[in-house]
Amino acid sequence: MSAKDLGITVKKDENLSEWYTQVITKAQMADYSSAKGFMVLMPYGYAIWESIKEYFDKRIKEIGHKNAYFPLLIPERLLRKETEHFAGFTPEVFWVTHTGDRELGEKLAVRPTSETIIYESYSRWVNSWRDLPILINVWNSVVRAEITGTRPFLRTSEFLWQEGHTVHESEKEAETEVMTILEIYKQLVEDQLAIPVLTGRKTEREKFKGAVYTTTLEAIMPDGKALQMGTSHHLGQNFSKPFEIKYLGKDEKEHFAWTTSWGVSWRVIGALILSHGDDKGLMLPPRIAPTQVVLVPIFYKEADKESILKVIRELAEELERAGVRTYVDNRTQYTPGWKYHEWEMKGVPVRVEIGPKDLLHNQITVVRRDTGKKESLDRQTARQTIMRILEEIQSLLFERASKKMMELTSTATNLESFKQLLEEKGGFIKGYLCDESCEENIQKETGATVRLISPDQSQKGECLYCKSENSRLVYFARAY
Amino acid sequence: MSAKDLGITVKKDENLSEWYTQVITKAQMADYSSAKGFMVLMPYGYAIWESIKEYFDKRIKEIGHKNAYFPLLIPERLLRKETEHFAGFTPEVFWVTHTGDRELGEKLAVRPTSETIIYESYSRWVNSWRDLPILINVWNSVVRAEITGTRPFLRTSEFLWQEGHTVHESEKEAETEVMTILEIYKQLVEDQLAIPVLTGRKTEREKFKGAVYTTTLEAIMPDGKALQMGTSHHLGQNFSKPFEIKYLGKDEKEHFAWTTSWGVSWRVIGALILSHGDDKGLMLPPRIAPTQVVLVPIFYKEADKESILKVIRELAEELERAGVRTYVDNRTQYTPGWKYHEWEMKGVPVRVEIGPKDLLHNQITVVRRDTGKKESLDRQTARQTIMRILEEIQSLLFERASKKMMELTSTATNLESFKQLLEEKGGFIKGYLCDESCEENIQKETGATVRLISPDQSQKGECLYCKSENSRLVYFARAY
Repeated sequence: MSAKDLGITVKKDENLSEWYTQVITKAQMADYSSAKGFMVLMPYGYAIWESIKEYFDKRIKEIGHKNAYFPLLIPERLLRKETEHFAGFTPEVFWVTHTGDRELGEKLAVRPTSETIIYESYSRWVNSWRDLPILINVWNSVVRAEITGTRPFLRTSEFLWQEGHTVHESEKEAETEVMTILEIYKQLVEDQLAIPVLTGRKTEREKFKGAVYTTTLEAIMPDGKALQMGTSHHLGQNFSKPFEIKYLGKDEKEHFAWTTSWGVSWRVIGALILSHGDDKGLMLPPRIAPTQVVLVPIFYKEADKESILKVIRELAEELERAGVRTYVDNRTQYTPGWKYHEWEMKGVPVRVEIGPKDLLHNQITVVRRDTGKKESLDRQTARQTIMRILEEIQSLLFERASKKMMELTSTATNLESFKQLLEEKGGFIKGYLCDESCEENIQKETGATVRLISPDQSQKGECLYCKSENSRLVYFARAY
Repeated sequence: MSAKDLGITVKKDENLSEWYTQVITKAQMADYSSAKGFMVLMPYGYAIWESIKEYFDKRIKEIGHKNAYFPLLIPERLLRKETEHFAGFTPEVFWVTHTGDRELGEKLAVRPTSETIIYESYSRWVNSWRDLPILINVWNSVVRAEITGTRPFLRTSEFLWQEGHTVHESEKEAETEVMTILEIYKQLVEDQLAIPVLTGRKTEREKFKGAVYTTTLEAIMPDGKALQMGTSHHLGQNFSKPFEIKYLGKDEKEHFAWTTSWGVSWRVIGALILSHGDDKGLMLPPRIAPTQVVLVPIFYKEADKESILKVIRELAEELERAGVRTYVDNRTQYTPGWKYHEWEMKGVPVRVEIGPKDLLHNQITVVRRDTGKKESLDRQTARQTIMRILEEIQSLLFERASKKMMELTSTATNLESFKQLLEEKGGFIKGYLCDESCEENIQKETGATVRLISPDQSQKGECLYCKSENSRLVYFARAY
């Protein structure tokens, strides 16, 4: 295989779908599996998931959340306890019916989400107001049968995620939790992954089955399709009642508790790839990149090798001490050119090259993945300059994606302009909407769904579909 | 509930089984689930698992391993590829037969272990010697139907673990990997969990189904029963052949690769509880304890509160800066007495109390969980002293457990003395054994199994069962 074969053979602008598949495979992010609809998360993809995990885990622990683990298999009778929830999930459930050759007395669901199995425990754990709040998070995987249109990261029958499940004394406290988590998600996605999002509530039609309401983060991909990046649900007392999660309050009376649940999955890695990648491959925001700086030695004579490697190692150590994640690529079976292609494909933000000329002038050469710009830096101040460049890349990626989101956001005043905008450029389309039947009609006619209700309801308007007055402002899009 | 009810109501020596159940429940380590044989890992238990994970993850990453994730559901035809492996696991497999109401064309196994699904990927990933070694680890859970004798941590139908799966160019390299991992496991268990172990190979009868050989770590519990703490398997080419994991060597010829697999599960937490706990509850070795030092303010007058809390917070910060995991227990709804009971139950190694008298004398009071010893320390040098005490506790717990293991290790020279030792004190019993049929007979007659073949084979002897000469030295025990 030549260095050229490493590269992507289609342009991102011309065939996003094929480009996406090639990037995932060639950057070794993920692989297909013979279990249909299931995906292998390869080490490089997993390292990105670890970055995401580390950030989010730290953030929620700082405000009192703790991790735990609940069973993978859920008895059918538990799943049935909340009717709407069961109806929503049952078509997608993978059912265990046998162990070995023995048929089970009761079917077990491979967890599609854990509300029911967790609430069974909570009903025992919660007795008094002193036991509240319960702030528990779980890192696991869930399975939901996806028959059609599976894509790595974006739509898979199994996905890694975290699911938070909290219990509170009051509705107000539960609602505050929902918003606190939504805000942490927003910071994860915007500040770490450099992907701008809209946040707000889902409509009744789009909410989580069993929730009072669902809040969401929605990003827009370069092809104009929206991607849901995470959700945080207010479950009210919808689950605490069937599961009997009750506590004796300070008032000495028994109350049903208030619960929330929230999740972010590996899907955000799909958004990361789609949002920032280019014709050379991945482009990773420095804060989430498993390797932020790769250092490549260049020598033509064996005599130069040791002195160059010495400088490379010194700089790498200096960067590591300052908290920069570095990798010294001193593999001998590959040429520098091959290495450049590989690290560009893998989206490493900064590449450092050091050759004989650099050594001579006490300098290093730095190449930015975001702009492709190559420059010589003074060796003495290289660490500080590289750290500044990493911050610049982080900002630039977010600015670019924000500009793209602005370009892909428009407003429709009637159904014709709505359809035209949807066909011509896609993206988020703002418009007024009355109630659920118009929402369904619009979806049937155009394929677009309501991604969120605009948080700004200062003005009401005429429904796009039925023209009734005093309708809410919402964001539509076709979605992944 | 009074502080007294928090405590364990049976003595460890008198009823280990009931003691174990009470500790797990009252220290909030784990909870039962309505999915029979499945267990909930509660936040405190999970925090211990996180400590274990963090240590092991760091150790294997330092020597080039990376994490990845593979599908939960395995098509039956994959599981069938290695015959012995399939036969070994199939009675325990949870089978998915339906999604929603739809019957699947092919049954899917909920992973009992991942060799087969991983090797399917490896067969595509490995082409040349340049692709080797592959050093991948997975943190996940596996399920194996356990019908009888389920105990939290020790025997559950689902358990959290890590499974490592590596591919190598040569048999020698694979065997080195098996031993490298066994050594890291030993350091995890002995240096972190403070539990002494014997290490060595399993017999053919006891090895992992599909392995060439299995190496193991075996600990002895206070009741004289052995507990397998982890295993590291040399799989030879047993899997690379049916899965066609082949590479083009430096010699330009095609070769089957050599593979290994290894795993440690949450079972080690069960061993941790059994080994170190006492009548007051858990006793955690400092290196693995989620909280190493708990600080409890004691004040009788509201006027003292702030000045005491100030000193507590300063000391906690000083300890945290030095890397000590601390918790300031300033809950107002509980008395100091209640708190002492609770933290003793939870096995926190060191408790610091600061009251008005301590303040007056510029001192603090320290209570060790391992000895119960209470002493006053000079406030100025408290941090250093506490850190020294933590090291002492770590050593003492290992020493105590080592002494216990020595007491519970004996040698049998014939079947009668073997049976007598087994009944009278249990523990490890060393003896000579010829081949598999005697092994099976001894197990049938006594319930004891061979835990490992002694690494020391300098002397051969007479088989305990059939008296044939030149038999190998092995360790027997009844096991969990």
